[in-house]
Amino acid sequence: MADVQLDGVTSDPVAMGWMVGAPPPLDKRILAARADHMRFPMIRWSYSNMRSFAATANVAASGTGTPFPRNLRPDLAALRFTPLGAGEDMTFEQSLIRNYTDGILVLHRGEVVFERWFGVTGPLTRHIAFSVTKSFVGTLLEMLVGEGRIDLSARVDSVIPELASSGFGNATIGQVHAMTTALDYSEDYTDPNSGVGAYSNALGLTPRPAGYTGPNNLWDYLATVPGAGSKGAVGNHGERFVYRTPNTDVLAWIISRAEGKPLHQVLSQRLWQPLGMLGDADLMVDEAGSPFAGGGLNLRLEDLARFGEALRLDGAGVIPEADVARIRSGGYPARFDPVTYPHLPGWSYGSQWWHSHDNHGAFNARGIHGQTLWIDPVAEMVISRFGSHRIASSIANDPHSVPVWRALADALSS
Amino acid sequence: MADVQLDGVTSDPVAMGWMVGAPPPLDKRILAARADHMRFPMIRWSYSNMRSFAATANVAASGTGTPFPRNLRPDLAALRFTPLGAGEDMTFEQSLIRNYTDGILVLHRGEVVFERWFGVTGPLTRHIAFSVTKSFVGTLLEMLVGEGRIDLSARVDSVIPELASSGFGNATIGQVHAMTTALDYSEDYTDPNSGVGAYSNALGLTPRPAGYTGPNNLWDYLATVPGAGSKGAVGNHGERFVYRTPNTDVLAWIISRAEGKPLHQVLSQRLWQPLGMLGDADLMVDEAGSPFAGGGLNLRLEDLARFGEALRLDGAGVIPEADVARIRSGGYPARFDPVTYPHLPGWSYGSQWWHSHDNHGAFNARGIHGQTLWIDPVAEMVISRFGSHRIASSIANDPHSVPVWRALADALSS
Repeated sequence: MADVQLDGVTSDPVAMGWMVGAPPPLDKRILAARADHMRFPMIRWSYSNMRSFAATANVAASGTGTPFPRNLRPDLAALRFTPLGAGEDMTFEQSLIRNYTDGILVLHRGEVVFERWFGVTGPLTRHIAFSVTKSFVGTLLEMLVGEGRIDLSARVDSVIPELASSGFGNATIGQVHAMTTALDYSEDYTDPNSGVGAYSNALGLTPRPAGYTGPNNLWDYLATVPGAGSKGAVGNHGERFVYRTPNTDVLAWIISRAEGKPLHQVLSQRLWQPLGMLGDADLMVDEAGSPFAGGGLNLRLEDLARFGEALRLDGAGVIPEADVARIRSGGYPARFDPVTYPHLPGWSYGSQWWHSHDNHGAFNARGIHGQTLWIDPVAEMVISRFGSHRIASSIANDPHSVPVWRALADALSS
Repeated sequence: MADVQLDGVTSDPVAMGWMVGAPPPLDKRILAARADHMRFPMIRWSYSNMRSFAATANVAASGTGTPFPRNLRPDLAALRFTPLGAGEDMTFEQSLIRNYTDGILVLHRGEVVFERWFGVTGPLTRHIAFSVTKSFVGTLLEMLVGEGRIDLSARVDSVIPELASSGFGNATIGQVHAMTTALDYSEDYTDPNSGVGAYSNALGLTPRPAGYTGPNNLWDYLATVPGAGSKGAVGNHGERFVYRTPNTDVLAWIISRAEGKPLHQVLSQRLWQPLGMLGDADLMVDEAGSPFAGGGLNLRLEDLARFGEALRLDGAGVIPEADVARIRSGGYPARFDPVTYPHLPGWSYGSQWWHSHDNHGAFNARGIHGQTLWIDPVAEMVISRFGSHRIASSIANDPHSVPVWRALADALSS
């Protein structure tokens, strides 16, 4: 593979000259019709410019937000840590290149103590958050649960009759929320026949195969996902955590039905405006207007940090404290598969958040290619990071990320 | 035609229920794949939500803008005027419904004296401006001319060699700016084989015909437009004004090449940020990243008014006074075709603006379906209006617009 040689430096999108010029030279164009925008190394440019490749809906900020104060600690760049597994010690700075970082902010006690930007990503950039989006959706769901408007023990088809004959229909909303549904759906990005392939075709994020006659939007697609009892589904709802993106799209559907509004408006009214986000965000939508709730939020890195800071501060008066407490209590480590996540021992997934259950109670939101929101309540630290790692799975960047988050926590607490 | 019955009230997009619900009922969905978003009455919803149907680039505001003060004059609603032609007298209020208005602001001496919103359009909405976009591009061009960085007497192909064999190549930049190029291109929206049909296919704003093999972006398309000497072109460059949208896309290309930046960044840096626009704007782009400079700007109505107010105030310290003076001097009425524009006698087109040459020196930006920015320097009045008129051509709304702008000017001056 030609791109094996490209590391975090040599894949720099400015150096590679993507989309520079009017028009860009033919070999520097990133074309959605070729799915370039979803392929490395072009993603180093496209993940900071997704609205140029997809229809979006606006998540409006109030326009009255103020930035976090800066109290920079340049010494943190030289902080050394040992990667997970067999890696040699490296510095925090080196890890940023290693992980194809596009931008990172470290907050300590509400002040930015470390800030770094790479390539085409800057403070105003709205970068795709991928599955970090799920943690926004999960938080909204907890808020509606707290208000008594959504009942986690209710069956999905009692709220969304359209899903009655799908695998979601006879699951409880709580099982969807916890991603313990039993479905015939695989999230294997390397298998074109996996469930995520069908999901992607419905969404239309990349060109559909010639002659495609399947669903052309997520709502229609969700109704087609087979469930417990079908040949590809293992076990029953509620038995174990299996990470499957469409669960989050079902949650978004439930939220929109409860609120009577599209997801981008709910995000704006319940989070973006009251939290004082600095900028609007872009939520990708498909051709019928279904939101890409499983991964289509594009936002500023500092606004991502602000969301984390609100969670750290028990909701900051915007998210009720009891809802934050439920989120922070985490999921069930016993349902977390040690074979799939050997490098994350003792973790759990709950409320659409990842929970380390370490002695700091650290929990986090994560998306493919390195999107991260890490909250360490004991160290009073929040880290937001965008990336465009050449490998989608977090397994590729966790070894040089998770241990340095803890090293930063320890350094800031000492 | 079924929609003949729908007037400004009965076509209200809220009443019609477009895109309400998760998902919207099948008969309430507006699908780009069917080109619904460009057809009445769906446009009453879609023109306020174009980024949900098209890829866009962000035109960033500074985040420090402040709204115009309000000093409302409710009495203006009852102002009576006589429409052009054979119409009976009506009130300003009645004209708003008659013209399928989505929003209107009237500024007098920098204060909002009249403000009205309809349907799904509000102060935060980014509504498509269509050809009002051209006047932003023309203003940028004048700024670069004023800086000596663009020479209106230079041939287009001296700056854009890619256009050498097109009809634009041997025209001067000034002829493109004045839309006096002789091209084989018709702007007839009712003829599927007209030039605007080929333009639209290249842009991809609506689905391309099956088997389409033409250009897939505006840059490539512009190079194919035949010019003087080809069978469809009449006369020679410079002889007469003929309104043809691709001229503006050529100007945008020249601007981007001079600035070394895409148009959305030039708009942000030279106008949006220094003018203190309240919100970001969305600039539609095609699949290669070419901006839809001829008509793809989506912005807030108050930001449109702010642009007009800057022109009224000799550039407001942002656009050099000499550049504004050149814009306000207008084009050549002798080149303006009285057969095409019988209701606009004595007008001209210059610097990508429309000039009435009336005794107030009123000039304006205009886009199909009622998009308007009207500047009356003598009355110290600026009007910005968005609309979704069932008929594209301004001829459909001018009779109930142009005379009331003057009636408002007179009322505010008395």
